[in-house]
Amino acid sequence: MIYLDNAASTQIHNDVLDSMLPYLKEQYGNPSSIHRYGRLSRKAIEKARKQIASLINADPSEILITSGGTESNNTALRGILKKHTSGQIITSSIEHDAILEPCKKLSEDGFDVIYLPVDKFGMVKLSDLQNHISEKTRIVSIMFGNNEVGTIQPISEIAKICHDHDVVFHTDAVQAVGKVPIDVGKLGVELLSISSHKLYGPKGIGALYVKKDVSIDPMILGGGQEHGLRSGTENVANIVGFGKACELAKTNLSENITHMKNLRDILVQNVLNEIPQVSANGNLEHHLPNNAHFTFLGVNGEDLIIKLDEYGVAASTGSACSVHTQKASHVLQAMGFSHEQITGSLRLTIGIFNDEKEIKQTVDILKKVVEELRAVSPFKEKYSFSKT
Amino acid sequence: MIYLDNAASTQIHNDVLDSMLPYLKEQYGNPSSIHRYGRLSRKAIEKARKQIASLINADPSEILITSGGTESNNTALRGILKKHTSGQIITSSIEHDAILEPCKKLSEDGFDVIYLPVDKFGMVKLSDLQNHISEKTRIVSIMFGNNEVGTIQPISEIAKICHDHDVVFHTDAVQAVGKVPIDVGKLGVELLSISSHKLYGPKGIGALYVKKDVSIDPMILGGGQEHGLRSGTENVANIVGFGKACELAKTNLSENITHMKNLRDILVQNVLNEIPQVSANGNLEHHLPNNAHFTFLGVNGEDLIIKLDEYGVAASTGSACSVHTQKASHVLQAMGFSHEQITGSLRLTIGIFNDEKEIKQTVDILKKVVEELRAVSPFKEKYSFSKT
Repeated sequence: MIYLDNAASTQIHNDVLDSMLPYLKEQYGNPSSIHRYGRLSRKAIEKARKQIASLINADPSEILITSGGTESNNTALRGILKKHTSGQIITSSIEHDAILEPCKKLSEDGFDVIYLPVDKFGMVKLSDLQNHISEKTRIVSIMFGNNEVGTIQPISEIAKICHDHDVVFHTDAVQAVGKVPIDVGKLGVELLSISSHKLYGPKGIGALYVKKDVSIDPMILGGGQEHGLRSGTENVANIVGFGKACELAKTNLSENITHMKNLRDILVQNVLNEIPQVSANGNLEHHLPNNAHFTFLGVNGEDLIIKLDEYGVAASTGSACSVHTQKASHVLQAMGFSHEQITGSLRLTIGIFNDEKEIKQTVDILKKVVEELRAVSPFKEKYSFSKT
Repeated sequence: MIYLDNAASTQIHNDVLDSMLPYLKEQYGNPSSIHRYGRLSRKAIEKARKQIASLINADPSEILITSGGTESNNTALRGILKKHTSGQIITSSIEHDAILEPCKKLSEDGFDVIYLPVDKFGMVKLSDLQNHISEKTRIVSIMFGNNEVGTIQPISEIAKICHDHDVVFHTDAVQAVGKVPIDVGKLGVELLSISSHKLYGPKGIGALYVKKDVSIDPMILGGGQEHGLRSGTENVANIVGFGKACELAKTNLSENITHMKNLRDILVQNVLNEIPQVSANGNLEHHLPNNAHFTFLGVNGEDLIIKLDEYGVAASTGSACSVHTQKASHVLQAMGFSHEQITGSLRLTIGIFNDEKEIKQTVDILKKVVEELRAVSPFKEKYSFSKT
């Protein structure tokens, strides 16, 4: 099986699993217990916190460990807004549901939510942010790299505008951390969400970077873990694995970027060369190194995924999570794609464990599958599917 | 090391770890992905949901998977109360902080919170509940088995009173599930919290039983996982392990209860026989089978834990989580214990992996340690510490 759905989830790195095993076996103490079992667990968490912080050049005290990227996003928004009962939130129209759904609820609760539009490449315009931001704005939340089309936003420029207006800036960076060099200080963000399972760590664990002196309210209350900001017995093994994954991501960052970008470029070029009536989407200049997003006219993306699966390629139409809502991609809609273009879309996301042979096989399989589907497509009269 | 802090956390059962490993290795698909990696993860979650449901005789559709007991408790309270802006909450004065802290916040938000008192054995009185419950009551939350002293509340009687008043009843059962036979239908509860790491499963995972037709609001919003009630990519490996732990707990329930109760009784009798000026606390008739809670007059519990740790016994003064707040046990205060009694308290909680030899060693060590500490106790004049 060729796994090209690394934006949905990644394989746990062997070194990560090895680091976790002692905490799934003999080191089972509750980190809050004062005996040696407890102390060993506590120590392991603090080591992991340093590893996580180091990847984004934060201070360990700025790392709030959560159950994952979705909880991080919810905590960021709710944590800032709980101090207020009204005001404005600025976000983009292409955020993940883990931002859009809390925003929808906040809108019902009386907040005014502005969704910045994007261009056909998925980029927000700084002038739109400038036009909307005001003393009423409580928080700006714009994602770092888009999960469907891979477009990277101008984060430090957005941060600058926010700071000029004394507004807290959050970025959902779950797709970017470990794939783009990130220095929270240089970027100037106040809040940044990370997910472990997007960077070869275990699922069910993540973090929210909370800049020193930025105060947030907790969402989950209880025993006072994470300095009272996230109660509940810590998921020690997963935290340790997440820490190790961050350490590996930092050590191998440039090598991984080069590897993924190389495979992605081979994939995109070969698909564009060998298959007719196809476009590669997203902003190819400001793009996550592992993302390839295509539109095959006259093909139904769902059928494509199923056929690819039969031929041994794991792919996706877009956000894995959107399968629950069964709705058309709001990201592609915001980018101005037609219904036909949205329907014919395919996301292939490279991982560090993929190799060139797999990519070339994928192109061959994709060519064959697209041909098969187009042969029975109701649109075959409309488009000329032969290579011109 | 003799581990007697099983109420704080338990060792993962080997069969549980074995069940998790495939999902930490080759089965890394996102359960929302439609390719075979995703489908295998989805299938594993649904199998686990059945195992969890089976342990408490619920329907799998009634199991909401969370990141742990604390999140389950927060979700229960917030999930019911979000529909309201005011009203009454009835709880007890000996709940875990994962109930007390959300209640404190709800009180600040305008809800009226009643904390039922307990007797010296840690039991609430049904007449107190009867006196307070009214049409203003939105939810009653009374824990199943207490985490410090092990007292088990009359859950089905409480449920009956709640139903007579059409009030939703939640019970925090994290210390009871897997140690007491639980049938949610017979008990008549609407909401029940479970924690995996208290029953030989991994940390960072738990569940909230939500009875059919009881509607709750989600706390964490996003991709719509768990039927929209708990968004975020599922922690597949931990869910699988939690499921396996529940299956084992069900299969071995009576055997485990007998084993733990036998060791606990040996422990309590030997401590009472061999050490002077000691009392065993809690309601010994309605008591979790694995809990032993003592007061050693003239001894500081913290010193006791540290000495026991040096001699190779992992024990606790009470709730592990309370270490963050450094406050005296609110449970023992509510039971009417004096400051000296609270200070001299020790919790030893048996697990399925303990054996009789360990328990007898523990009694010997405890006898020695208590003697040592009493020899330098400022209270040695006050009490006669020789065995009479």
